[in-house]
Amino acid sequence: MATLEEKLIALGLQKKRTIPDNQMAVVGVAQAGVICAINILGKPPADELVQMDVLEDKLRGEMMNLQHGSLFLQTPKIVADKDYSITANSKILVVTAGVGQQEGQNPLNLVQRNVSVLKFTIPQIVKYSTDCIIFVVFNPVDILTCVTWKLNGLPKHYVIGSGCNLYSARFHYFMAEKLGIHPSSCRGVSVWSRVNVTAVCLQELNPEMRTDNDSENWKEVHKMVVKSAYEVIKLKGYTSWATGLSAVDLIKSMLKIYPVLIQFFLSLLCILNTWGLTSVINWKLKDGEVAPLKKSPHTLWDIQKDLKDL
Amino acid sequence: MATLEEKLIALGLQKKRTIPDNQMAVVGVAQAGVICAINILGKPPADELVQMDVLEDKLRGEMMNLQHGSLFLQTPKIVADKDYSITANSKILVVTAGVGQQEGQNPLNLVQRNVSVLKFTIPQIVKYSTDCIIFVVFNPVDILTCVTWKLNGLPKHYVIGSGCNLYSARFHYFMAEKLGIHPSSCRGVSVWSRVNVTAVCLQELNPEMRTDNDSENWKEVHKMVVKSAYEVIKLKGYTSWATGLSAVDLIKSMLKIYPVLIQFFLSLLCILNTWGLTSVINWKLKDGEVAPLKKSPHTLWDIQKDLKDL
Amino acid sequence: MATLEEKLIALGLQKKRTIPDNQMAVVGVAQAGVICAINILGKPPADELVQMDVLEDKLRGEMMNLQHGSLFLQTPKIVADKDYSITANSKILVVTAGVGQQEGQNPLNLVQRNVSVLKFTIPQIVKYSTDCIIFVVFNPVDILTCVTWKLNGLPKHYVIGSGCNLYSARFHYFMAEKLGIHPSSCRGVSVWSRVNVTAVCLQELNPEMRTDNDSENWKEVHKMVVKSAYEVIKLKGYTSWATGLSAVDLIKSMLKIYPVLIQFFLSLLCILNTWGLTSVINWKLKDGEVAPLKKSPHTLWDIQKDLKDL
Amino acid sequence: MATLEEKLIALGLQKKRTIPDNQMAVVGVAQAGVICAINILGKPPADELVQMDVLEDKLRGEMMNLQHGSLFLQTPKIVADKDYSITANSKILVVTAGVGQQEGQNPLNLVQRNVSVLKFTIPQIVKYSTDCIIFVVFNPVDILTCVTWKLNGLPKHYVIGSGCNLYSARFHYFMAEKLGIHPSSCRGVSVWSRVNVTAVCLQELNPEMRTDNDSENWKEVHKMVVKSAYEVIKLKGYTSWATGLSAVDLIKSMLKIYPVLIQFFLSLLCILNTWGLTSVINWKLKDGEVAPLKKSPHTLWDIQKDLKDL
Repeated sequence: MATLEEKLIALGLQKKRTIPDNQMAVVGVAQAGVICAINILGKPPADELVQMDVLEDKLRGEMMNLQHGSLFLQTPKIVADKDYSITANSKILVVTAGVGQQEGQNPLNLVQRNVSVLKFTIPQIVKYSTDCIIFVVFNPVDILTCVTWKLNGLPKHYVIGSGCNLYSARFHYFMAEKLGIHPSSCRGVSVWSRVNVTAVCLQELNPEMRTDNDSENWKEVHKMVVKSAYEVIKLKGYTSWATGLSAVDLIKSMLKIYPVLIQFFLSLLCILNTWGLTSVINWKLKDGEVAPLKKSPHTLWDIQKDLKDL
Repeated sequence: MATLEEKLIALGLQKKRTIPDNQMAVVGVAQAGVICAINILGKPPADELVQMDVLEDKLRGEMMNLQHGSLFLQTPKIVADKDYSITANSKILVVTAGVGQQEGQNPLNLVQRNVSVLKFTIPQIVKYSTDCIIFVVFNPVDILTCVTWKLNGLPKHYVIGSGCNLYSARFHYFMAEKLGIHPSSCRGVSVWSRVNVTAVCLQELNPEMRTDNDSENWKEVHKMVVKSAYEVIKLKGYTSWATGLSAVDLIKSMLKIYPVLIQFFLSLLCILNTWGLTSVINWKLKDGEVAPLKKSPHTLWDIQKDLKDL
Repeated sequence: MATLEEKLIALGLQKKRTIPDNQMAVVGVAQAGVICAINILGKPPADELVQMDVLEDKLRGEMMNLQHGSLFLQTPKIVADKDYSITANSKILVVTAGVGQQEGQNPLNLVQRNVSVLKFTIPQIVKYSTDCIIFVVFNPVDILTCVTWKLNGLPKHYVIGSGCNLYSARFHYFMAEKLGIHPSSCRGVSVWSRVNVTAVCLQELNPEMRTDNDSENWKEVHKMVVKSAYEVIKLKGYTSWATGLSAVDLIKSMLKIYPVLIQFFLSLLCILNTWGLTSVINWKLKDGEVAPLKKSPHTLWDIQKDLKDL
Repeated sequence: MATLEEKLIALGLQKKRTIPDNQMAVVGVAQAGVICAINILGKPPADELVQMDVLEDKLRGEMMNLQHGSLFLQTPKIVADKDYSITANSKILVVTAGVGQQEGQNPLNLVQRNVSVLKFTIPQIVKYSTDCIIFVVFNPVDILTCVTWKLNGLPKHYVIGSGCNLYSARFHYFMAEKLGIHPSSCRGVSVWSRVNVTAVCLQELNPEMRTDNDSENWKEVHKMVVKSAYEVIKLKGYTSWATGLSAVDLIKSMLKIYPVLIQFFLSLLCILNTWGLTSVINWKLKDGEVAPLKKSPHTLWDIQKDLKDL
């Protein structure tokens, strides 16, 4: 007997599609994972969203909760499974399935635990999606992006960490707030001599900007950026929203320049397009600006060299 | 000594704005509240978003977390405070600050508790925003919308419950899934004779649709809608995403028809615009369709009449 | 000597992309063609937009004009050439390159002329994009869609006419205007018994709706739809905006139901997805509703049988 | 006898709205005017769009053409009239109703003619919308913005010219094209020492950038910006798209920094919000950069001082 679907369709001209062109998968349905998912669904570069997690109930609940909102979203298909095969043939895979930063946790323990997660996750992902870009969205993202790259054997530009894109966003927010303008008019990362408002270099207007003599205490802005993640974690438990928004912003970039983390442990300016990382920007630094940047990878290296089983 | 902001601004032609034209406030920063907030920020009808909650740390954490994502959002201003005065002059106030439905909870206890929340909240809101539309987004929404209306003394059309808009969205999703089409092509609420795909009435194609003889078991779709909220709560603890998306969809409606709850305990089709509820649609029902709809308000009435202190 | 680009790029990890994944091409830069282009660029399903026309100056001017607006658009690449090879590997090809309807023109002359355009254009397109969907957006679209299908030898579901999607949009607009609601709440095409507002069938409320006894004169709405294209052409010369918006709406559809023209000369309800036309909806008609619909293809057939050289 | 609308509405709770909160009006339905209109409709900051022109047929045709596309747009109300009273109570008024630049035309004749248009138009506009922001979008925009300001007696910050925003967009496009990146990653206007890619100053990488010794000939980019408007006009007759996109980009700005023309004949960087122009940025120029900028207003002054009847 004919089903209602068969009765409704008078003339079927082609089979239903089986493999979408631009499927995206999000591994992990904890806060950052679900927020990546909702942002991909709302203004989609994706025809199909795949969710994957080992926590079966939570995964099914999140999938159903998003499916029920389909009427208000644009991505027509949402699927989920605890088996990695569900992610097969994804174009972009967002990996959020790590353990979150806890207040007062020893960073080395966090790293060791998340490296273990990656050692299990990445080979499974690469097995089912041989030509995908992997976005790493959990902390410490610098080290874990590097670990991911080592683990998967893919070309370097296929592995992208959410890196300091969120740090830049926070810096722009605090800077914008102090100046009374919108964050999108602010530019500049890490190095004070580069900080500018459209075409106006702020250090030219206030040469004391990075010093202790600065009556406006701009150094405080830097400190607020550094501590803001910890503060949000202390206050509400996790940094979900900004993390998810920042990751999805990277996913949507095409030929735009973003401060993205690459494998060399430095938050360099890179050019991203839909095929991954294309190139790294030559960032002419002034004397005295190089040393603090170099310090950062050394600290990360100190952590990484003690990691077991890598 | 001049600040950097003063140096940057060569010529100030007008003062910074103080009162935005279309401020929105969300009371409550639990799941549904924050999801309403993020959706208002992303595709905004608002220049300024206000968050309010009595949990000071959680509130500050959520506010900071959203502010840090400002670069990726369009609403330039996000503020928060535990004092109700922060919501002053809001055009729309979304009230999500109730206690959530728990698995296996006695409904009457939930109602009694959330009525107490409303009795404290609503007079505070109306005190600071005398001309606002109030959206009620917590359960049991039918009763609480009615209670809100009684409490605030505003005209009826200023109080809107998120009502069965989410139930409709779920029904459209399950229906679309069964037919292999997008939910936005599906229409119909509560009454099977009205269920249609664009202009095709499904009951005409399958007259057994609502009966036990239906080999496709469409009755199951109705059951899935009814139980889906409980199932999501059981699996992941709360129905945040679809609730938030559905509420924001209502907020954005202007002269569109939505199945919105009105004060008469029935999920009727209403016309909403930016000034609130404008009118109720005349929904000609067939014999046998009226009784089950009438049953629903009676059940609700049974609960409401036992509420204390109203 | 190194170029600035070479100096800017410190580390090139991959070559610049050569073939985008989802290129779209618009043939023709007259009004409808450019409006299709601007809509594709603004909310893009495309990474690259190709424009093609035989009028070299006009083409170059339109391309430059759109490129200059790149900062405000989202599609990063816009190219144009008078040679059909520029459209190579397009996923969707919008063909607008016909002669427009003129006030008072003999329809047969228009058909004959546009068939000649198609006979030259289609084989060129199919030569360079062997797996593309072709959207036909010029009049008389019913006949020309059919002609395109005959000319290109592709499967039927690869050729889609903008058909009566625009007529439906106009009907919804006039209906919404008369009822004081938004067009998106209105449903129904061609057949009065199907016309509904969400779930409310209008003919049930007003049984005289299609008759001469109707004091509200709803027949006039039908007449306004039929004559509105001619009226716009008479007033401003062409129906560019609504045509372009309607065509792009079809392009963006995925698994949604739209009233799209298929090759059998009838504006049937069809299901479209990104792979083209998937199926035709079974539209149960009442007695007296079939005859007027059948009349339409006969009229079209009368025109088509006199076409030369097909 | 009841109309269908009366039958459909079972319960009317409030009257239909009469005065929208954020009406926008576009004066002029030539190319730039209609393109401003379509962009306002698509991603609206407006509830209602008003079109006004003295050419009654063209105006009615454009209005109808946009109304027919309502289903695909978000602004629910579009009205038009040849009488200025239709624009009453607009929040923002876009004035495009001038005569376009023609190939080879004497600039002074164009100015004189468009000043005459303004002398008639502006007092009519100000009469009906006493608290509106006026955007001037026709050429020569520098002079006409100044003339508008003199004519309307409003505070300076209520009159904004589309100024060099479009020139900047073109500069960003050519620069981005030369570097292989997206225009939104490029920054810098008029002065080479300010031109940067995110935080990287290009002149530091190529110190010969503005000189004749520059092997990459970046001076050509400047020349292309200057001549591109003329080239588009020569090729297709008018610069509609980029002009409209750029104007609407300005309209949407809120607290963002844009290079907007102010009344002092110089394209200075200004801060715009929804209340108009708030302040002018202090743009520290190097030696040799001031003179060419000063030259521009003098040239404009030479034209303006010969205008009659001002």
